[in-house]
Amino acid sequence: MPRPLCVHLLPELTTPEALAGAAVAVIDVLRASTTITQALGAGAVQVLARSAVAEARRTAEGIHDPPALLGGERDGLPIAGFDLGNSPGEYTPQRVSGRTIVFTTTNGTRALAMCGQARRVVLAALTNAAAVARFLHDQPAVHLLCAGTRGEITYEDALLAGLLVHRLQDAAPGTWARNDSARLAADAWTAALGTTRPAAPRLAEVLRQSLGGRNLCALNLQADIDEAAQLDRHDLVPCADASGTIRLA
Amino acid sequence: MPRPLCVHLLPELTTPEALAGAAVAVIDVLRASTTITQALGAGAVQVLARSAVAEARRTAEGIHDPPALLGGERDGLPIAGFDLGNSPGEYTPQRVSGRTIVFTTTNGTRALAMCGQARRVVLAALTNAAAVARFLHDQPAVHLLCAGTRGEITYEDALLAGLLVHRLQDAAPGTWARNDSARLAADAWTAALGTTRPAAPRLAEVLRQSLGGRNLCALNLQADIDEAAQLDRHDLVPCADASGTIRLA
Repeated sequence: MPRPLCVHLLPELTTPEALAGAAVAVIDVLRASTTITQALGAGAVQVLARSAVAEARRTAEGIHDPPALLGGERDGLPIAGFDLGNSPGEYTPQRVSGRTIVFTTTNGTRALAMCGQARRVVLAALTNAAAVARFLHDQPAVHLLCAGTRGEITYEDALLAGLLVHRLQDAAPGTWARNDSARLAADAWTAALGTTRPAAPRLAEVLRQSLGGRNLCALNLQADIDEAAQLDRHDLVPCADASGTIRLA
Repeated sequence: MPRPLCVHLLPELTTPEALAGAAVAVIDVLRASTTITQALGAGAVQVLARSAVAEARRTAEGIHDPPALLGGERDGLPIAGFDLGNSPGEYTPQRVSGRTIVFTTTNGTRALAMCGQARRVVLAALTNAAAVARFLHDQPAVHLLCAGTRGEITYEDALLAGLLVHRLQDAAPGTWARNDSARLAADAWTAALGTTRPAAPRLAEVLRQSLGGRNLCALNLQADIDEAAQLDRHDLVPCADASGTIRLA
């Protein structure tokens, strides 16, 4: 019996019911899942995802010894009064080790909100793709949920979904039943990159042409794209619970 | 100044406002756009697209000398009391020449409903892809609108969108600005077929793996897939107006 391997190119293209009981990987390559992976890799204790800026501030106010750090973005830019933006490079061990990060971002939280009935929810970036694929490998049903940008399908999220489809299929050929969006995503990866182990500069070049990449270039944040293109750099899997608390598996 | 070349993988992923003033190609490869193209190629005077079965019957009742033919499907199957189903092969010159077809289908009409403010609306199938690409070639803004199946993105519609993206780009390189879904669609075509002139059997083999193709195989309608895979067979462009009347350009 083949296992479902479904890609949803936007949160709006699925429902909480469709994800019920499944393992879901939430994908927001540029930049939330890359940044959160980096933060946990740099020693942050946990990341608390919040939809609204005011809600993030309230959550942070309740955390002491040490105080929480506020991180995230609106329209790609840092938020006034926040400690950190949404550039992975800001999340160094010096800044975040041992701390709780309260994080708010435009698109990633909408994707997490779809996952209320999922069995496991993990965050996938190019930087931890191998670890995520290993985590998903023996799950009975896998959904790859792309965050997109303001309701628009993005190439960068589809690419990572495609890489994960390739790796899951390569690890257990013939056991998965892909939906049509999983075929599209896998095709995008194949057409753009061919190998499942491309060099980071080539991957960054492809990312720069995506919607998220073009937006970051316009904001002069090319360095974030280079960070996001460090394929398989982190051997770790951020897991989210229903309250938006994200910790390492 | 690059011209917009946007793919929308489902009608729900765009708005009438986003399509305002543009040329739109509506894509429902399996099978509405293929069947309607076939009907007009076989000499039907016009096709009147209607959402509901009852509405189609009412429209047909008002047409005499000769009477209209009722065509279309629900859940892939012929409709009780209708003259024709949604198999392209049924629409022969013997059956449809000189006649008006009142046509109702599950997904195609929802796509047409998005196009109320478009400048031109044409129907694209694999069977008339070259003619559609020629028609779109000098338009200032092009949107390729995939019908999908019951709110789900389908591989077969994305493939044709990708072929049209390739052909428009090949005909006027550097003049188009693709959205990310146009990149995905073009990649799907590249990964699945490579050349923009594949043989019909190879194209049919790829279509059989798509959501629409799998549905038709389950209904034992493989012959419809073979018909839909006759690339560039018809040198004609069905054009729709705001009332759902479809005639040759």
